[in-house]
Amino acid sequence: MALSKKLKSQSEQKRYGSLAPRRRNAAKTRERILKAAMEEFCAKGFDGARMDRIVEYAGCNIRMAYHYFGDKEGLYLTVLEDVYNQLRSRERKLDLKHMAPEDGIKALVEFTFDHMANHPEFVSLISNENMMKGKFLHQSKNVPKTTTPLVQEIRDLLKRGQKAKVFRRGVDPVQLYVSILSLSYVHISNRHTLSIVFQQDLEDTKWLRTRRKHACDIIIGFLRP
Amino acid sequence: MALSKKLKSQSEQKRYGSLAPRRRNAAKTRERILKAAMEEFCAKGFDGARMDRIVEYAGCNIRMAYHYFGDKEGLYLTVLEDVYNQLRSRERKLDLKHMAPEDGIKALVEFTFDHMANHPEFVSLISNENMMKGKFLHQSKNVPKTTTPLVQEIRDLLKRGQKAKVFRRGVDPVQLYVSILSLSYVHISNRHTLSIVFQQDLEDTKWLRTRRKHACDIIIGFLRP
Repeated sequence: MALSKKLKSQSEQKRYGSLAPRRRNAAKTRERILKAAMEEFCAKGFDGARMDRIVEYAGCNIRMAYHYFGDKEGLYLTVLEDVYNQLRSRERKLDLKHMAPEDGIKALVEFTFDHMANHPEFVSLISNENMMKGKFLHQSKNVPKTTTPLVQEIRDLLKRGQKAKVFRRGVDPVQLYVSILSLSYVHISNRHTLSIVFQQDLEDTKWLRTRRKHACDIIIGFLRP
Repeated sequence: MALSKKLKSQSEQKRYGSLAPRRRNAAKTRERILKAAMEEFCAKGFDGARMDRIVEYAGCNIRMAYHYFGDKEGLYLTVLEDVYNQLRSRERKLDLKHMAPEDGIKALVEFTFDHMANHPEFVSLISNENMMKGKFLHQSKNVPKTTTPLVQEIRDLLKRGQKAKVFRRGVDPVQLYVSILSLSYVHISNRHTLSIVFQQDLEDTKWLRTRRKHACDIIIGFLRP
């Protein structure tokens, strides 16, 4: 067995080991379809994506895909909710409520920055969804619901920071988060045009390291009273 | 004559009045094609845009469009260079080198913010060009060339601000500009998903007014020593 196959099989074993064989196979197939769909939707957008290519990559037949996800729209919405769920569940693991205010904000900026840098597929998918005016995300009840606790956590950090006199007053948590996201997002979403316009390689490791520090400095510098 | 037609004809009169009738008509047709092309490329992206729709909106025949712009790619590149030229030439009019450092940076943030808010077509066009990995902008020599003076103006403001002890040291002008752009861009490019996720209307005038002040506060707050 090739090493990559062996590793894949070990990770699948770990994840699905407790399920009965039939359910285990179903879960594996479902996951393979989702992974293939993510790649196809990121590369081609919703309109350009093709179900036959997705099932070919996933190595299953098209009936399986329709069985699990209903139709192309259902599959796309699942992929879209999945990338938000991943972001939100990793944010929760930061455990901001147990951090000192400045450490908490710094951790959130660094996490958001790294998540966008390591998940350009999130950036393409979200940019594409905006080109479609958010018509699919409108159907999701889950995504707004899981975002509310994040806003609450930022509000709490800001309040504690004000009380400890390390943060300025009157900062809105949603505005702050939109800024953290913006400083983590545009050099990824617009890396091609910005690299041309400024004649610098925005995908260069050193450039990204400088940008990461700059993004943190901006948010922390602004928050100081 | 309807008022809108009369106004249009007055503005065309002002712009092309000095040209001989034949050249005047040619310049008007060229401009109508560009305007129609901008709308079509923004709405449909490069791949989805159709030349027959563009000439229909422009009220001319397709031979004219090919005569002025070569082909669809030539027309698209002209539109792309046009939106950058507009942005850069309006920036130049701010005349940053004659402003006090803090006033200059504030003027640049407010201008960039307003330009993105008032020109969502710039935002869609640039986002779409990035989805195509900047393959057309790569052909432009003009856009990088006209951006160099902007970087120089920001560098000069930063230097003067440091000398006057109103700005911190060691800020890179390109990083700063990418941040100003980011804080002006994402709430426009991602307005649909962000409005859903945060259950707030990001196109609301009051929200945008709050965001404009927040963007200025962030940049100025960060720059203070």
